[in-house]
Formats: sequence, C-alpha cells, structure tokens
Amino acid sequence: MMVPAASPSLPLVLVNGQLTVGGFGEISTRDRGFTLADGLFETMRVHGGVVFRLDRHLSRLSGGLRTLDIPDPPELRSWLAGAVAQAGVAEASIRLTVTRGAGPAGLTPPADAHPTVVIAVNPMPAFPAAVYEQGLKAKIASGRRNPRAMSAGLKTISYTDSILAWMEAQRAGADEAIFLDTDGHCSEATASNLFIVSRGTLRTPSVTCAALPGITRAAVIELAGRAGLPAREEAFAVEDLLAADEVFLTSSLRGIAPVTVVDGRPIGGGTPGQVMRQIASAYLALVQQECSGA
Amino acid sequence: MMVPAASPSLPLVLVNGQLTVGGFGEISTRDRGFTLADGLFETMRVHGGVVFRLDRHLSRLSGGLRTLDIPDPPELRSWLAGAVAQAGVAEASIRLTVTRGAGPAGLTPPADAHPTVVIAVNPMPAFPAAVYEQGLKAKIASGRRNPRAMSAGLKTISYTDSILAWMEAQRAGADEAIFLDTDGHCSEATASNLFIVSRGTLRTPSVTCAALPGITRAAVIELAGRAGLPAREEAFAVEDLLAADEVFLTSSLRGIAPVTVVDGRPIGGGTPGQVMRQIASAYLALVQQECSGA
Repeated sequence: MMVPAASPSLPLVLVNGQLTVGGFGEISTRDRGFTLADGLFETMRVHGGVVFRLDRHLSRLSGGLRTLDIPDPPELRSWLAGAVAQAGVAEASIRLTVTRGAGPAGLTPPADAHPTVVIAVNPMPAFPAAVYEQGLKAKIASGRRNPRAMSAGLKTISYTDSILAWMEAQRAGADEAIFLDTDGHCSEATASNLFIVSRGTLRTPSVTCAALPGITRAAVIELAGRAGLPAREEAFAVEDLLAADEVFLTSSLRGIAPVTVVDGRPIGGGTPGQVMRQIASAYLALVQQECSGA
Repeated sequence: MMVPAASPSLPLVLVNGQLTVGGFGEISTRDRGFTLADGLFETMRVHGGVVFRLDRHLSRLSGGLRTLDIPDPPELRSWLAGAVAQAGVAEASIRLTVTRGAGPAGLTPPADAHPTVVIAVNPMPAFPAAVYEQGLKAKIASGRRNPRAMSAGLKTISYTDSILAWMEAQRAGADEAIFLDTDGHCSEATASNLFIVSRGTLRTPSVTCAALPGITRAAVIELAGRAGLPAREEAFAVEDLLAADEVFLTSSLRGIAPVTVVDGRPIGGGTPGQVMRQIASAYLALVQQECSGA
C-alpha cells in the first residue's frame, strides 16, 4: 500500500519559511519546544504532490495552538506550498512543528515569543510488506494514557510515553504497543489510532479515552459510513480488543495497518481481515481521488 | 530567601561541551528532544560557585537515561564544572538537558544517535518578595497527573501539561497550579513538589501519586527528620490540603515557597506558617553548609 518514494532532494527542511541548506536547519537551545515540549505538530501525507486533507490538519493544529495560546502563524499555508513545490516529489510525508519559540528559563510563557515553525518534507516511510501481509504484533503497554491530562486531545511534542511503550514492545518481540487509558479502556497505539471489528461493526476508542482525534481515523469512519458499515466511537475494554474479529491501526504515514496478534494471542483468524482490506483499499482510493483534485 | 544574582556573563550555554558565543547555541531541527520530547533535564542551584547536591541530580538523571535507553554522556561532570568556572558567578541556576540526539522522522530510536547535551547557566530567578511574605495563591488544575504513565517519575522534557495548568491558574488570578492525580490524590505543582503540615506532621504526596522525586523534597524530608518533625510520603486528598495548617512548595530554583490560598480559600491563618519558616531557614543553612564544603 505504501510506495516508498526516496528522493535525493529529501529531506527538505524550512525553518520559519527559510529553506535550510547543507543539513536540516537549526533552532535555538532556548526554543521552548526543545526545553518544555511547548508546541504541537502535524504529520501529513503528500500524494501526487498534494497534501491529503491539509485543511483538517491545519484546523486541528489551530485549535491546539489556541488552547496553548500560541499565535497561529499566518504564513503556514504558503510555507507548506513552497516546501512541497521545492521538494518537487509526488510522494512524501510532511512533519509540521509549531512551538511557542525561544524564551528564557522557566515555565512562564514569554509575552514577546515568536513561534518557531519547522516544516520537514521527508520520504514516505517504507513499512515492510510483511506488515500488510502478516499483520503487526502488538503488546499492551504497561503504562496508561491519561484522558484527564491538561493536554488530552492535543497533538503535542510530548511523545516520551510512546517511545517508552514502543521500546517495551520491541523488547517483548512485538512491533507496536497499544495503550489502555487510566480507566482501563482501550486508547490508541504509539502514533496511530486503533480500530476493532466485532461482528461487522467498526469500533474505535472515543476521544474521551485519550485517543487523539486522528485525520485518518476520521476518514475511516467516513468511509465505513459510505460502505454501509456501522462505525462507533466509544469506550471498550481490552477483552473486546482480544475478542475482536479484526484489529487495525490508522495514521497518516501508515495508512491502514492490520494487527494480527495482541500480547501473543491471535486476533480472529490470526491473519489480516476482510473489513480491514476493504477499508484500506477505499482509503487508498480516497487519497488518490482527493489528491488528484477529482 | 532568593538572592537574584544577575550577571553580564549569564546566560552561558554549552552544547555538547562547546561554549556558544553570540547567542544561546543551536541544535538540529531533527533533535528528538525538539521533535518528540525524547530527553530529560535537571535544574540545579549554584551557591558560592558550587552546585548544590550535584550527585543526586546526576544520579536521578542517570536512572532516567537508563529507562529511556539513552547513553549517559561520560563528560557531564567535567562539562558542568567547566560551565560553572567559565560563568564565574557565585549564584546561578543550571539547566542541564540531555536528549537522545538527532534522528530521522518517526518514533523509532535510531541505533546510531549521539546524545545532545545542553548546559545553560542562568541567573537565579528573582521571585517577588511578596511570595515569601504573603504566600502564593494556588489553583487546583482542571487536568490530572497520571501516576501510571510510562514516564511517571522521570523528569522528561514534557512540560506541556504544566504550562497549560500554569496558564489556567493565571487566568483565574492565581500564581500557581496544584495537580491532583487520576485517582484524586494530591500530586505536585507545575514545577515544584507539594508539602502540607497537619497538626505538626509534614506530609508530601508519595511518588505513586505522580509526584516527581524532587531533590529539594528529599532535603526537606531529611531536615524535618533532623528537627524531630514527623514527615511522611503518602497519598492524601484535596480535603487534607484545604484543611492543612500550612502548605508549601519546594524546588531547586524556588527553595521553599509558602502557599496561603488554594482555590480562593485561605490555608491555616492565611499567612505563611511557622513550620515552613523553620524548614526554609534550615534549608538555606543546608545549602550554605554543603556548598561551602563544610
């Protein structure tokens, strides 16, 4: 499903709209993104030279910036367009990071901060074909997501917990980690949303279960609706996950990825399922359609 | 209690042991501290040109780096000593940041990453005298700390929640925020540990309540012991906080700071208490004694 599209021109990095040359650009050691994770990011897919669902990514970002009281840089769209044009590649991923900018030591947000914007156009990651043929092995993370965090629902830079869960999963021989929330509900994976299929119904953890409101997640719910498949955002337990007929993950970079083993136990028949395949091909068609301007 | 010691030589910043000139130094936009909060930090107090309890700070840092599987840079001590010597000031604060270093896009920790070490010697923050005379007004944060986070107990870069709680407190006319944990126990402030005094007994939230194992917190427990004051690390509720005779916060930069109002309600007599004053002067004496090598 993913076509790796390495290019000698990638990565291409813009810092505050300026193209960096000879390296990947630099930011101040006092940038509050670096010192305090005081910023947000979006990861987007470029297909056919077009960013898939750019408006939704920028709208989610704007909402988060408003919560953090970081000014929304008005140049974002033109910088992104410039980055994609300068990269000159059809297939890529974009990491857009916006932080509060540099400031003196301490938590207090400086009144005169100027946001730092880093746009990195990267090759699409090349996931091993085995992921799609055999499915991912997932481990339930030992730590929990917090639906009552101040930053719940925001795509902040704070991915330390995800990194720790990913490392824990790797040590256990798994490919991915799935988090429960502090109430014991299923939440999400380290950087993907979670879906299960139970008796023909798609279920994904509600955002009240500390699941990020993913752009691909929303597209999958939309596609299920079009296909007449019931899809529900709701809380469900790890027992529902383990008893599901199918499990899959969604993200801008990964698309739709099947999970066939959780904590060593096979899901459904232990092979990627039919609903996942149907959604994955509908998702690919959606990306192609929207990015061709059709 | 805090003597602001501004100096024209501060801030002084070292990046991987190299003194930066004309600015505060730069790091790569691909540094995983900046992209994913994949790193830790320590904030330390310099008194009389000596870092207070350096060994404990470095030991806590080493433990955290081990958990994150980031190599512990062997040059830390010599770089820190060099930074303090080059700053040439008696009073200062140090922010030591260690991240996994630069890497390509994605969560996967690169096998060949080299940690990034930023040492910033800053002036001691000048807290308004009113903080110590009248005490701080605190607000209970609307969001909760998570004792079951993968990174619980680690001093990671992820301070987004603290920033949001601090801003929320400011909007409510308060100076500081106090977090509860997801189980409803008192936890800590935005960048300080929490103590209450109830009928002559000091109580501070246990680390199982998502409280960071603070260096000043440990010193206060030690000083209470020496003074024959009972001191307990344990879970307690917001009702205990509101009914306390005294409330105070502890951190390397702030020392011991009284809280006299929580959510608009006065604590004890509504003025800084005697136990806090006794601990604060014992703490100051401890800093002076240990930093003079006595």
